[in-house]
Amino acid sequence: YAGVMESLISYAEEQPPSSLMTNSSSLKQESNESGSPKCVGGFVLVHAGAGYHSESKAKEYKHVCKRACQRAVDQLRAGALAVEAVTAALVELEDSPFTNAGLGSNLNLSGEIECDASIMDGKSLHFGAVGSISGIKNPVLVANCLLNEAQKGKLSAGRIPPCFLVGPGAHDWAVSHGIPPCPSEKMATRFSLSAYKRNKRKMELAEGTVPGQNRTKKRRQSSENGNGSGCLDTVGAVVVDLEGNVAAAVSSGGLAMKHPGRIGQAAHYGCGCWAENSGNMNPYSTAVSTSGCGEHLIRTMLARECAAAMQSEDAHQALLEAMQNKFISSPFLTSEDRVLGGVIVLRCCRCVEAQPSPNIQGILVEFLWSHTTESMCVGYMSAQDSKAKTHISRLPPGTVPGQSLAIEGGVCRLKGVVE
Amino acid sequence: YAGVMESLISYAEEQPPSSLMTNSSSLKQESNESGSPKCVGGFVLVHAGAGYHSESKAKEYKHVCKRACQRAVDQLRAGALAVEAVTAALVELEDSPFTNAGLGSNLNLSGEIECDASIMDGKSLHFGAVGSISGIKNPVLVANCLLNEAQKGKLSAGRIPPCFLVGPGAHDWAVSHGIPPCPSEKMATRFSLSAYKRNKRKMELAEGTVPGQNRTKKRRQSSENGNGSGCLDTVGAVVVDLEGNVAAAVSSGGLAMKHPGRIGQAAHYGCGCWAENSGNMNPYSTAVSTSGCGEHLIRTMLARECAAAMQSEDAHQALLEAMQNKFISSPFLTSEDRVLGGVIVLRCCRCVEAQPSPNIQGILVEFLWSHTTESMCVGYMSAQDSKAKTHISRLPPGTVPGQSLAIEGGVCRLKGVVE
Repeated sequence: YAGVMESLISYAEEQPPSSLMTNSSSLKQESNESGSPKCVGGFVLVHAGAGYHSESKAKEYKHVCKRACQRAVDQLRAGALAVEAVTAALVELEDSPFTNAGLGSNLNLSGEIECDASIMDGKSLHFGAVGSISGIKNPVLVANCLLNEAQKGKLSAGRIPPCFLVGPGAHDWAVSHGIPPCPSEKMATRFSLSAYKRNKRKMELAEGTVPGQNRTKKRRQSSENGNGSGCLDTVGAVVVDLEGNVAAAVSSGGLAMKHPGRIGQAAHYGCGCWAENSGNMNPYSTAVSTSGCGEHLIRTMLARECAAAMQSEDAHQALLEAMQNKFISSPFLTSEDRVLGGVIVLRCCRCVEAQPSPNIQGILVEFLWSHTTESMCVGYMSAQDSKAKTHISRLPPGTVPGQSLAIEGGVCRLKGVVE
Repeated sequence: YAGVMESLISYAEEQPPSSLMTNSSSLKQESNESGSPKCVGGFVLVHAGAGYHSESKAKEYKHVCKRACQRAVDQLRAGALAVEAVTAALVELEDSPFTNAGLGSNLNLSGEIECDASIMDGKSLHFGAVGSISGIKNPVLVANCLLNEAQKGKLSAGRIPPCFLVGPGAHDWAVSHGIPPCPSEKMATRFSLSAYKRNKRKMELAEGTVPGQNRTKKRRQSSENGNGSGCLDTVGAVVVDLEGNVAAAVSSGGLAMKHPGRIGQAAHYGCGCWAENSGNMNPYSTAVSTSGCGEHLIRTMLARECAAAMQSEDAHQALLEAMQNKFISSPFLTSEDRVLGGVIVLRCCRCVEAQPSPNIQGILVEFLWSHTTESMCVGYMSAQDSKAKTHISRLPPGTVPGQSLAIEGGVCRLKGVVE
């Protein structure tokens, strides 16, 4: 491929104000009374898609990332687990009319909205997913409900609860589990409807089906900018709570003008998101959420590959190599000219502080994002921060999307008191 | 877990009759005339499900496995690639009213048939899948058509072709690509309809919704034999052709009484089947197809895990360890009391014969099956054989399904002439 571009990582170590440390310590004592000590806090990293973010759109995307971080942190501060916090972030991202998820999703070939979403809990390793679901404002809530229901064990007559539901069956399951339906016309926006009309016209031109036109070639055109990377703005988030649990989620309206019933990576196990607490084989807890061309992300199983890579010592180097070898140069995508996608990655491990007291144990969080698309919009925040940081990462001018990549990230230290 | 049971592997080396070798040599000369030499032949291994096969059903299952092998070998002898041969085997398996795939599939909670199927080509590494598809007699044909269409490149206006379609959208896509629809009433059999009535009654009893009954507990019963392992008879096949290309496919009607829209492993990338030709990183070509409880097979990504394990030197030991560590004792299934599933595995590499002539190059095929269910029905055949061998592998009496495993297999040497 044409050459890898690599941005400098800004490893900005964030020291929490000491007042918060006192807070955390007093909270610990509080919760001791109820039997098991509970840590409150954590860290969230969100993305509003890898694609192309014009300067005019940048402000809106940053804004929704900021709100999504705040939502997750509100949950973490209230003592929620990572999987609850990541769901809260996703709901905010889905509710934005600017993102291609939930409200304002891309329309498919028939002019309908069909959404994919999934969630994974690194603690239980359970997974929930919905695909091609219509008439539900927040698909991530259905995915999360599937995950919760599966953790309750078998259904009547020993039936195994589903982890992945699609189509009308998924919609009906959601409604019967208390998730309200949403009329389709409320999910489309002026923007998504006008994009549909534009795309339809473009297709008719390409297929020569416009009246008065005389082109006969119907399909298989290799259109230069056809796969307009502006339309890949899937959303996702990764979270770690102060107990060290990780969770990841992803939600997408799918490619514009997709065939009805098409499932992208956001509903696909190992492809859209991955979360795995540290264990016997894994020194680090890892969480990943992906964005981009669904078929590329499915066939490379990018979320799981990146999570696996994160077990090596140098997180930055590992992600760089994974994006190069398992994505851009993947043997699974040799026939593709442009491999478009992006990931957000979080990994963490417990660490003991030398200062101010060896009694204070913390969690070292390394967070990264990388993309082969022109840009990717991210936001991040720890429960110790007063507000989220947002950033639009871009490939440098002159590099070719799909052949080059950008990689950036940071480090954050979460503090807790040893039991 | 309770202890692993291991059957003796019968490594029966199958020497082809010398007449066939002459055939293969003359065919080579024939095809030389048309430019590039083409090898004809190969090997197929099929299964009619891991579950429970009563002695009374055994004959039918063996019979359909035999016919499926013959169909694949017919294709291989006619010069078809592995991916075409594996499709032919699956069509035969789906067409049997005794298997839980295509015709005669399990009915879902609403009394409807919804099928999952997928196929993977080890040569191109392309993948095609359909999920929750109704009204199509042979779901594997739709999966194969998706795979073929994806290999043709982009659609009009630069749209990326789908690799995974579900529900009514999948049905419409199939019909628009020349696959005939099949009325639902033709897909149900007397057997599947009576099983539905029986299961429905069982559920009503368990949920206490039978009139006159006074039980109130509605769900979450841990029924002893609820997940009747007789209902897991998904089908699949793995093939290698004489060029050394591998392919794998799987097809399933899903769990009986599943929720409408539920997707099992058969439609899930990396979970239902896997095929990967040898390459820079992989000394062996590998192909895997799985059967069993879809949710367990999804969350352990069993097909891909077994394929990856097959790259180590001792195939039998590697599969044994994969089934133990990545399935029965998988950290992803710690909350499950019984982990039910089975795999068929094929791996192969080129080898040079010392006898009768160093000019003759062959392919060494190692094939294995392993299951934690009470039984698994398999069949296998090389293009050099006059008929298929079939076998019902069983756990020994006294062992516990879901906690013990059986593993068996064989070796076959395919011969070709070096160009």
